[in-house]
Amino acid sequence: MSQAYSFKHFTVVFPAEHQYVAHVEINRADKMNAFFEAMWLELGQLFNQLSEDSSVRAVVLSGAGEKAFTTGLDVKAASEGLLSEGTDADPARKAAQMRRHVAQMQDCISAVERCEKPVVVAMHGFSFGLAIDLSTAADVRVCSKDVRFSVKEVDIGLAADLGTLSRLPKVVGSSSWVKEVALTARVFGAEEALRVGFVSAVHENRQATISAALEMATLIASKSPVAIQGTKEVLNFSRDHSVQDGLRYVGVWNGAALQTKDVSAALLSGLQKRTPTFEKL
Amino acid sequence: MSQAYSFKHFTVVFPAEHQYVAHVEINRADKMNAFFEAMWLELGQLFNQLSEDSSVRAVVLSGAGEKAFTTGLDVKAASEGLLSEGTDADPARKAAQMRRHVAQMQDCISAVERCEKPVVVAMHGFSFGLAIDLSTAADVRVCSKDVRFSVKEVDIGLAADLGTLSRLPKVVGSSSWVKEVALTARVFGAEEALRVGFVSAVHENRQATISAALEMATLIASKSPVAIQGTKEVLNFSRDHSVQDGLRYVGVWNGAALQTKDVSAALLSGLQKRTPTFEKL
Amino acid sequence: MSQAYSFKHFTVVFPAEHQYVAHVEINRADKMNAFFEAMWLELGQLFNQLSEDSSVRAVVLSGAGEKAFTTGLDVKAASEGLLSEGTDADPARKAAQMRRHVAQMQDCISAVERCEKPVVVAMHGFSFGLAIDLSTAADVRVCSKDVRFSVKEVDIGLAADLGTLSRLPKVVGSSSWVKEVALTARVFGAEEALRVGFVSAVHENRQATISAALEMATLIASKSPVAIQGTKEVLNFSRDHSVQDGLRYVGVWNGAALQTKDVSAALLSGLQKRTPTFEKL
Amino acid sequence: MSQAYSFKHFTVVFPAEHQYVAHVEINRADKMNAFFEAMWLELGQLFNQLSEDSSVRAVVLSGAGEKAFTTGLDVKAASEGLLSEGTDADPARKAAQMRRHVAQMQDCISAVERCEKPVVVAMHGFSFGLAIDLSTAADVRVCSKDVRFSVKEVDIGLAADLGTLSRLPKVVGSSSWVKEVALTARVFGAEEALRVGFVSAVHENRQATISAALEMATLIASKSPVAIQGTKEVLNFSRDHSVQDGLRYVGVWNGAALQTKDVSAALLSGLQKRTPTFEKL
Amino acid sequence: MSQAYSFKHFTVVFPAEHQYVAHVEINRADKMNAFFEAMWLELGQLFNQLSEDSSVRAVVLSGAGEKAFTTGLDVKAASEGLLSEGTDADPARKAAQMRRHVAQMQDCISAVERCEKPVVVAMHGFSFGLAIDLSTAADVRVCSKDVRFSVKEVDIGLAADLGTLSRLPKVVGSSSWVKEVALTARVFGAEEALRVGFVSAVHENRQATISAALEMATLIASKSPVAIQGTKEVLNFSRDHSVQDGLRYVGVWNGAALQTKDVSAALLSGLQKRTPTFEKL
Amino acid sequence: MSQAYSFKHFTVVFPAEHQYVAHVEINRADKMNAFFEAMWLELGQLFNQLSEDSSVRAVVLSGAGEKAFTTGLDVKAASEGLLSEGTDADPARKAAQMRRHVAQMQDCISAVERCEKPVVVAMHGFSFGLAIDLSTAADVRVCSKDVRFSVKEVDIGLAADLGTLSRLPKVVGSSSWVKEVALTARVFGAEEALRVGFVSAVHENRQATISAALEMATLIASKSPVAIQGTKEVLNFSRDHSVQDGLRYVGVWNGAALQTKDVSAALLSGLQKRTPTFEKL
Repeated sequence: MSQAYSFKHFTVVFPAEHQYVAHVEINRADKMNAFFEAMWLELGQLFNQLSEDSSVRAVVLSGAGEKAFTTGLDVKAASEGLLSEGTDADPARKAAQMRRHVAQMQDCISAVERCEKPVVVAMHGFSFGLAIDLSTAADVRVCSKDVRFSVKEVDIGLAADLGTLSRLPKVVGSSSWVKEVALTARVFGAEEALRVGFVSAVHENRQATISAALEMATLIASKSPVAIQGTKEVLNFSRDHSVQDGLRYVGVWNGAALQTKDVSAALLSGLQKRTPTFEKL
Repeated sequence: MSQAYSFKHFTVVFPAEHQYVAHVEINRADKMNAFFEAMWLELGQLFNQLSEDSSVRAVVLSGAGEKAFTTGLDVKAASEGLLSEGTDADPARKAAQMRRHVAQMQDCISAVERCEKPVVVAMHGFSFGLAIDLSTAADVRVCSKDVRFSVKEVDIGLAADLGTLSRLPKVVGSSSWVKEVALTARVFGAEEALRVGFVSAVHENRQATISAALEMATLIASKSPVAIQGTKEVLNFSRDHSVQDGLRYVGVWNGAALQTKDVSAALLSGLQKRTPTFEKL
Repeated sequence: MSQAYSFKHFTVVFPAEHQYVAHVEINRADKMNAFFEAMWLELGQLFNQLSEDSSVRAVVLSGAGEKAFTTGLDVKAASEGLLSEGTDADPARKAAQMRRHVAQMQDCISAVERCEKPVVVAMHGFSFGLAIDLSTAADVRVCSKDVRFSVKEVDIGLAADLGTLSRLPKVVGSSSWVKEVALTARVFGAEEALRVGFVSAVHENRQATISAALEMATLIASKSPVAIQGTKEVLNFSRDHSVQDGLRYVGVWNGAALQTKDVSAALLSGLQKRTPTFEKL
Repeated sequence: MSQAYSFKHFTVVFPAEHQYVAHVEINRADKMNAFFEAMWLELGQLFNQLSEDSSVRAVVLSGAGEKAFTTGLDVKAASEGLLSEGTDADPARKAAQMRRHVAQMQDCISAVERCEKPVVVAMHGFSFGLAIDLSTAADVRVCSKDVRFSVKEVDIGLAADLGTLSRLPKVVGSSSWVKEVALTARVFGAEEALRVGFVSAVHENRQATISAALEMATLIASKSPVAIQGTKEVLNFSRDHSVQDGLRYVGVWNGAALQTKDVSAALLSGLQKRTPTFEKL
Repeated sequence: MSQAYSFKHFTVVFPAEHQYVAHVEINRADKMNAFFEAMWLELGQLFNQLSEDSSVRAVVLSGAGEKAFTTGLDVKAASEGLLSEGTDADPARKAAQMRRHVAQMQDCISAVERCEKPVVVAMHGFSFGLAIDLSTAADVRVCSKDVRFSVKEVDIGLAADLGTLSRLPKVVGSSSWVKEVALTARVFGAEEALRVGFVSAVHENRQATISAALEMATLIASKSPVAIQGTKEVLNFSRDHSVQDGLRYVGVWNGAALQTKDVSAALLSGLQKRTPTFEKL
Repeated sequence: MSQAYSFKHFTVVFPAEHQYVAHVEINRADKMNAFFEAMWLELGQLFNQLSEDSSVRAVVLSGAGEKAFTTGLDVKAASEGLLSEGTDADPARKAAQMRRHVAQMQDCISAVERCEKPVVVAMHGFSFGLAIDLSTAADVRVCSKDVRFSVKEVDIGLAADLGTLSRLPKVVGSSSWVKEVALTARVFGAEEALRVGFVSAVHENRQATISAALEMATLIASKSPVAIQGTKEVLNFSRDHSVQDGLRYVGVWNGAALQTKDVSAALLSGLQKRTPTFEKL
């Protein structure tokens, strides 16, 4: 099954002991998993493919190597890209080019949010800049004790534009804390991340974090995919709408979803104390 | 006064020592307060009545029996209901039936949110599924040490459609935690509920929890009902609107509300160190 | 530079050791910094001026005297104002007068939010009523151990209408806690404020709090003002819009902002391990 | 079938030649169909019943007598009601009573909008005040040549609060015209109503108007009820949401609706040049 | 009374025969009423003053001279202003300056919309660019036969940013027409403006147009100011909100507004066939 | 240049006399330009390509053959597709498949709206179903006298889900008319389409319509592309947002856009009475 996932900068494995779980790893350990253009294009394609793959019910995303989940944008590559872009254009035309470029990158990262299957991100070591953009587009975040987070963008003279500023305030509860870390770019660690609700759990080290993420993904993957995908979709919809709209939307959604055989399968196996099986979706 | 509240599945008492406070208890202890259709219809009527009763200024909601606040939907009754519904209709017509059914149930539970008087929920023991839907429609949540919470719906093959997915993300601050508990259906306890802000306080046991809820309700009921009902309404409005809209709304609201005699009553009694009395509302 | 800021009820200083930082202090210590009409009008003017002053990159707001950041509205002055307002008008006309009055006060306090430069509020002692309205309009909140917070308005018979009810639920994560403190007006302290995310940090006393706020402001002021002002603006926009809208907005914003020389200045000084300097904005 | 609809102030008939069409008539011709409290309560019940009645696929609403569709609120009755309402309450408490009263009336009129079946309103003669509120809550408006419309409310000293100000600007295209007729209360006729798009068609007289409305309703009632009810629902949702949200909503809606047998029934009968029949909904 | 309105670029008169009506005229006929910076600053101040002046109940806005209502921005003055603005700043800093500048101009023009009293615009001759921005911020538009309208901005290389692109689509019904005139900048006349609903009426010439506008304003000014100002406010609120929100808002608004004496004054004078008088607001 | 556009079901030409204008024609005249899956996939790719092609400044879309712009979905092909889709899946899983399928089709059609260059649609003959979806996603609509429009979907048992129900009410002004044509599927002609504002102009026949559309596109293409693309973007944004949000957005947009050389080029050529030339975008 892994063969269907042939990417240059990401490895995708389907661990036998974690049924229906895809484990994606950022695979540029020698550069601390820093991103350049080809990588986020691949990322978008990869999560679009996972979204439609009915053999996948949950996804874990982690970074290769001991040092970093990702240090963020490969600044060197990015600055070369920026410089080469139509330097003779007037500021309005340059603005249009940059806007399109940013929109394209946003779209790749939003593929993680749009992915119909839940995504658990396991972070360790340096997790700067793009790490925050990426992980806030995912569903659940866990990390290792050694993690070092930073909303790094102001340190290179820009307002974070790949999702952090739009999603982080809706991901954690304290606006004071969000503004502080976004305006100062200070580093914060695992314990603080847990306290403010940025991550759901802290684990001993990289390996323990990934194992825990895989366990959580496996648990999610054991449930009815109709129920799980509906839950993700309705939670995402509700974030951006009023409660009244959320209720209306889930009512329409469940008009069809409640007709699944999974409900009786789940109920029956509950009574019979055995594990239900569910058809693909 | 209790006589006005004659319900089959809920007891309503007005404790003498808690002026203007209605104490509502789910009254099906032998079935761990599991809900079936007649119960949520009654619930809606009950909270509509409380909303309009000018003798009531705050409400406490708890569950009878030591074992559970409520284990949620009575799955057995619900599945019978589902099965009997127009089984020969095509999927589109079945969807319409279910959508109407869900909308009706949502409306009953939203009666707790629409109730003009603040509602404090005191939870203990099993508090699964509908317990989360119900309590997120209330204003303040407290619980006992022995409480066992679960967003249980995915375990029976469905996305929660009675409010949890729309309200829970707006009730607690950590999106990572919300998604984790909604996607895994894992049980969580009092301490975790307090840490993430789902409840405001944890008390020793069921009785202490209910006592504390009654105390809080009594304190709320001792304030100007003009101020309290305005505060609930404006907070609910603001949740679903921009800050600018919230400011505009409260400005219009207070155009009338500030003309109450309660302001001078409150100010005067403050200076005179005595308890103010306020007319009904 | 301070000379440009000549206000009666606020002192504005530019500490030499805190470059580009304006320190604003509420200057009515003998009345525990309680506000009356002339003060909030000045407050609005002051923050409008700071917003446009290109020598200012971050602002600290604190209260003079040891006892209080502010006890809120000067109730005596306010009630006299209310009483003198067109007492022979009918309730609809009085409502219009009050609505305009509230809108004007809201606009003064919203000047803190509209200020293009980040505002860090350092609170100590009594911080009641207006203290909450004011500080939720700011970006980051810190406090001293001795702080005593209260959403005090229901105690004087009114629903808070100067921002607390619209902003507080978007500033902290626990709706249960927000409703409890807004409906009971109970006092809460520094530790609780930190736990729920209302403040970002607690310091030993007033002086230590102000020092820490100045340090944070200085750190913010050392970054590119293009990046910082963009970050504040996009975070404020995103609070009130969907993630999709937030992404679209920051894309347009950065079309221009990425053309700043600050990016290369920041990158270069990063490589050269020296402090970058940025032009005014 | 009419027997199921026993109302005092409305007649409900099911004309044999108009299959699945309910014809509702306001039945107070001697008072030019002016409304008082009991009438709008009945109106709400009536349309809630029509909404759920699977024998009904479209509704026509008209007024009895030659003189008026309705002259609006029975001002005499209304003013008595207003005067008798807790005249000793302070302005804040009176405001609460009125707000509840207005909300109740709005809810009755919104029953026309919430009714799952399309509603065609046929208006003639005086159609003042409430006639505009009522008809903007319906789906299609037609009128006779002799109709006299007026947004009458400012003439009795109030801003229209039963729907006109919220719905009329979303019902016709010219904001200049809407503001003019709402601010001047001037009378306008059939031709002008057609020109600005308030009505879809003008007919010779009352009888011709009602006949045409019944024809249109019959045509609508001959289509698949799955398609028709979905079309009404999605149009109503889209009015209040962005295009992107509208597309998302109809996608979810049609996930179930496209599974109806009506699609193949409609396609087949199209090929076979015969009239399809559809099951009830 | 006119003395209170001393402006350089606008004349303000209170015609004796048009009680409570202020007639504002753009007063730069020799330059076809083209706007430069000092003018729109005055415009903002003028309408803020009218908004609060309880002697004013409706406003007419027209242009002096036979040739033009206004030809729009004084391009020569504007381009000088643009050129002089910090030409050595980098594109990001220039963007910030322009954004602030545009925001300031928008705020002046939005003063027409924020003005609590209805504004009728009477247009004639050249009515280009800013004429559309200005008039869409008003409530009712009328014009003379000789009027020549154009959304002129694309002809000078820019997207209209003072309100036309945000308001015009909500002011007329045909999106196809709006896009056509906004993308081509073609001139359109009175008849076309009436057909698409941009204006409410066309009159013979400038004088007839102004007379008709004054008549309409006088009619509006003869109604209860409580009703009129509420109607304008609720229509403006409803434009930007869902029907449900509009209903909620007008319910709160009328809680106070219905307590006016104007209702009984209006009812009584209606019965007695005499003209009611209303207190100021 | 046409070579870059190699599509099977669409012809793309760049008429020499219409500089910067791309003329796209639906190329399945023998089947009255009915759409099947491969066609809308191509349509999406085609408009994505046009959006990014800096040689294109405006687009005309028309249909080949004398009989039809398009009769809509190729019902035969579509029904085969529907039937073959996982017929053994339960209704919830089928709903998921259909939802994804609809979302994919919507995305293709929305490419016309997302296209940064204005799109003028020239319609003639049968223009049913998808013709309405497609053309409401475009900017300007014109048609020939012989056009026959129909929102045809309810006739085949479904609610239109490719954009008509979400966009049509925001494209024309009369909600009564929109609901009538959407609920009855009745055919309407050119004159009616012009009267309600669905089209901007009616021309004698297919050829005259296409010529007029090309003329309009050429006029648009002669303007500054910075101004034109900004105007389209801001109009589209404003449709879905409040006026306040629209003003904020265009202010940020123009911060960069006003720095274009096109403004001075346009101004100068205006003074010098010659045609300006603008760089590509």
